[in-house]
Amino acid sequence: MQQIQSTISTTLKMVGAVEKEQDSLKIGRFFKNFRAKVPKAVRRTKSMSGDKGGGEEGEDEGGAGDPSDHAGDPSDHDEALENFIAACEAREKQLLHDMEQMKEKFAKLLLGEDMSGGGKGVSSALALSNAITNLAASVFGEQSRLEPMTAERKSRWRKEIDWLFSVSDCIVEFVPSQQKNKDGSNMEIMITKQRADLLMNIPALRTLDAMLLACLDSFKDQTEFYYLSKDASNEEKGNARRLDDKWWLPTVKVPENGLSDAARKNLQSQKESVTQVLKLAMSINAQVLSEMEIPENYIESLPKNGRASLGESIYRSITVDFFDPNQFLSAMDLSSEHQILDLKDRIEASIVIWKRKMVQKDGKSAWGSAVSYEKRELFEERAETVLHIIKHQYPGIPQSALDISKIQYNRDVGQALLESYSRILESLAFTILSRIGDVLYADSVVRNLNQSTTKSQPNSTNTGSGNEAEKGNLMTLSDLLTWSAEQLEIDEEVLDCKEEMSIEMDEKQMQNLNSVTVKKTYVESLGGVGSPKERH
Amino acid sequence: MQQIQSTISTTLKMVGAVEKEQDSLKIGRFFKNFRAKVPKAVRRTKSMSGDKGGGEEGEDEGGAGDPSDHAGDPSDHDEALENFIAACEAREKQLLHDMEQMKEKFAKLLLGEDMSGGGKGVSSALALSNAITNLAASVFGEQSRLEPMTAERKSRWRKEIDWLFSVSDCIVEFVPSQQKNKDGSNMEIMITKQRADLLMNIPALRTLDAMLLACLDSFKDQTEFYYLSKDASNEEKGNARRLDDKWWLPTVKVPENGLSDAARKNLQSQKESVTQVLKLAMSINAQVLSEMEIPENYIESLPKNGRASLGESIYRSITVDFFDPNQFLSAMDLSSEHQILDLKDRIEASIVIWKRKMVQKDGKSAWGSAVSYEKRELFEERAETVLHIIKHQYPGIPQSALDISKIQYNRDVGQALLESYSRILESLAFTILSRIGDVLYADSVVRNLNQSTTKSQPNSTNTGSGNEAEKGNLMTLSDLLTWSAEQLEIDEEVLDCKEEMSIEMDEKQMQNLNSVTVKKTYVESLGGVGSPKERH
Repeated sequence: MQQIQSTISTTLKMVGAVEKEQDSLKIGRFFKNFRAKVPKAVRRTKSMSGDKGGGEEGEDEGGAGDPSDHAGDPSDHDEALENFIAACEAREKQLLHDMEQMKEKFAKLLLGEDMSGGGKGVSSALALSNAITNLAASVFGEQSRLEPMTAERKSRWRKEIDWLFSVSDCIVEFVPSQQKNKDGSNMEIMITKQRADLLMNIPALRTLDAMLLACLDSFKDQTEFYYLSKDASNEEKGNARRLDDKWWLPTVKVPENGLSDAARKNLQSQKESVTQVLKLAMSINAQVLSEMEIPENYIESLPKNGRASLGESIYRSITVDFFDPNQFLSAMDLSSEHQILDLKDRIEASIVIWKRKMVQKDGKSAWGSAVSYEKRELFEERAETVLHIIKHQYPGIPQSALDISKIQYNRDVGQALLESYSRILESLAFTILSRIGDVLYADSVVRNLNQSTTKSQPNSTNTGSGNEAEKGNLMTLSDLLTWSAEQLEIDEEVLDCKEEMSIEMDEKQMQNLNSVTVKKTYVESLGGVGSPKERH
Repeated sequence: MQQIQSTISTTLKMVGAVEKEQDSLKIGRFFKNFRAKVPKAVRRTKSMSGDKGGGEEGEDEGGAGDPSDHAGDPSDHDEALENFIAACEAREKQLLHDMEQMKEKFAKLLLGEDMSGGGKGVSSALALSNAITNLAASVFGEQSRLEPMTAERKSRWRKEIDWLFSVSDCIVEFVPSQQKNKDGSNMEIMITKQRADLLMNIPALRTLDAMLLACLDSFKDQTEFYYLSKDASNEEKGNARRLDDKWWLPTVKVPENGLSDAARKNLQSQKESVTQVLKLAMSINAQVLSEMEIPENYIESLPKNGRASLGESIYRSITVDFFDPNQFLSAMDLSSEHQILDLKDRIEASIVIWKRKMVQKDGKSAWGSAVSYEKRELFEERAETVLHIIKHQYPGIPQSALDISKIQYNRDVGQALLESYSRILESLAFTILSRIGDVLYADSVVRNLNQSTTKSQPNSTNTGSGNEAEKGNLMTLSDLLTWSAEQLEIDEEVLDCKEEMSIEMDEKQMQNLNSVTVKKTYVESLGGVGSPKERH
């Protein structure tokens, strides 16, 4: 009895010592000690020897248990106890390991990625933005199949995003609040509260995050489609082989008669839900980017006027008397990602130029200017419309020069967190949609083959899902025209959707909303998630 | 048996769940579950009910233990087990709590103390420097007695300084190293290694830190002196009452016949050891500060020449034909901390001015300059000598304008860590020396009273310890003169001492080195540790 008491007090002292010293060696000793002493008191002398669990720890035989103590069925209990101790120990090690990892992450962030310590690194805002981008790239980069993420990747993702976002908990603002005085009167006082943009958007983004992971999880036990190794022969792949240049993606195989109706329905419903996530993430990302300041550095690099920025031919097309944005776009060469991005950059630049000129004009005389205030305002509006259409039609297009510049020079830590989180969720949603598209496409190929008629009817809409999966091709002009009208109405819908989100996080609600067809673009070929820094 | 197996697997699953979710609620459940189930299997049905430990957790009676299992002397084992589980649980909670705390600390550092998140905060270097300063102020601020720090304060200190210094582990540089090729030849490759200044100084500072804490610990069981509450009446305090203005410090009481020889010897030896620590900390601090760049901002604020910076009268004294630094200082008004600091600032400023002019002169003609290059060099050397003397004579004087400016604009994270750590250790060493001085003074008063002759012999050196404890008074001129010669030789000694330190950490070695008398200054009245930011 006294012996046990003293063992306990020793054990507790050791806990104290461990707490004080944070020394993982001591922790090993703490558990070893408990293993060596306390269980012995509960043990029959005959039973147990070097079985699993504590065996490899090399039990210390010095601890003298009281042999007069006899447990009823000790080997089982011992095993249970051993396992419990092992679990405690493992958990403790895990926590200490996490702590070390976290310290290192934060240390690197504090150094702004400048490991010389000289303080020549990037701002905290950019360091966090890059950290989130890189984390997503390494966690989601491999999502080439429609299947749950491994528990390990999922746990890493949650853990590290939680560390990075802990910074947002400290970003506060003063808001007025009521305090009740002793005499019952109310007094207005100022209290701190998380900054409004973070308070609103972070829970929304976390929900989108959870929805995307849940979507992947929903394919856990599906047995209808499977993937061939990317090294499979063309024969094996058969007609399911990819027609695009994404050779690194595994080929999807569906049953000979196509997917079951239930499976197809489920894919469609997941597609709709992920499309909503994509739209919300895009909308948050666009909003944050629009709120970021335009860096001086970007302004200095601009040409002197809109005409120089757009180039003679585009400038003429946008300044015609009767302007139709779709007609304008149809005249543009949008055959490659590079062309689209270039147009986006030119238009964004001229919007900035015109806006600045309009503001400057307010104070100056219009004398000497070739373009009147009103005309400039008109051109600026037209450019905004075109930009809006481009952005929604090519959601996966890389960031524009203005966006990259904003991300790079942004000093606001809160905006950096929102921008990067929404950007990587956008990218993940996009990847998942592509993977869903892969399966639906494989299904449509099989079914069209079975019907043996489909090939002559490329415009048939009976599959409802095959068309948008034309691998790797950008949209054609006719797509553009039918699309744009629908697209322009998205924003209000997105706002409604966001409000719903904040009230009720049930993802089923999302599925009733209209879905928009989302085209594949080149973001994948850039490795899924592009850091603005990497491209510079 | 099977039941236990399933309990274990449930338990282990829960550990997994806990690991994934980092949720402290779940952890509570994990331990509660283990408490409720596994121990029951080891329990006699009769024994145990709602005793200490698990009692308040509200044990779940749903877990069905096997009643046929009978333990030999279960109540003891149960108690041991309960205690063990409680210890594990407490430790787990502590770790999670630490983790949360650490996240918050780092988040605030990343925000550079700008809680709006707008990135308008200070650099990482200054944020870390301020964090270390503030941590020391709150941990050591209360060290008004010569007694061990409480375990809680000590543990907080170690934990948090460890967090802050984890940043230093990531500061690396490339150094050449040898790699053995397969064919046995050597190849030079570059590897990363902690930056040399950190690699050298951090272990030294950590040792100084440990020595100071060990010094305080050494007074744990002493019974010879004790402290009266600061509210004690003057009568109680008797002749031990403080003669200075530090009313907030408790009064020391020693035995009527003074301290025992052993106690006095121990105090003297601790004093010598802490003095060495102080000197080393000062030397590291001075070195780091001297390596920091002079901020543009400081240079811009300088007067146009040395004469304007020093003022006419000081300028004349320093530019006389035959210059004696001690004579120079004796002519200065050093009656208050303010005067000393002012002189230090003026001299530092003129050193910077002269050095810059000498560099500029190299490229230009001397035409138009009132002072020749050689003369300027001579004056600059004189000013350096004076500055050196002042710095060593008044170790506790607040930082000069130049030092504050350097700390504030320094962007180098490594230097910030070294500067702040050495500064606060300097300050702690100084405080401990003052506390030792308090006791030695109280002892000398008692013994002088007993001898009844001492008062007429103020210059007697028989006590060997009373003199330097003249409370709160700055040194007199004669002190200065006898001191300076000794002081000028300190630096080499300090360097020797530092080398020894890095080889062997035995503090006893230190005690053989000569000690210097350290005067009390006003650093305490500023709250022990002053942050450069606070003063601005």
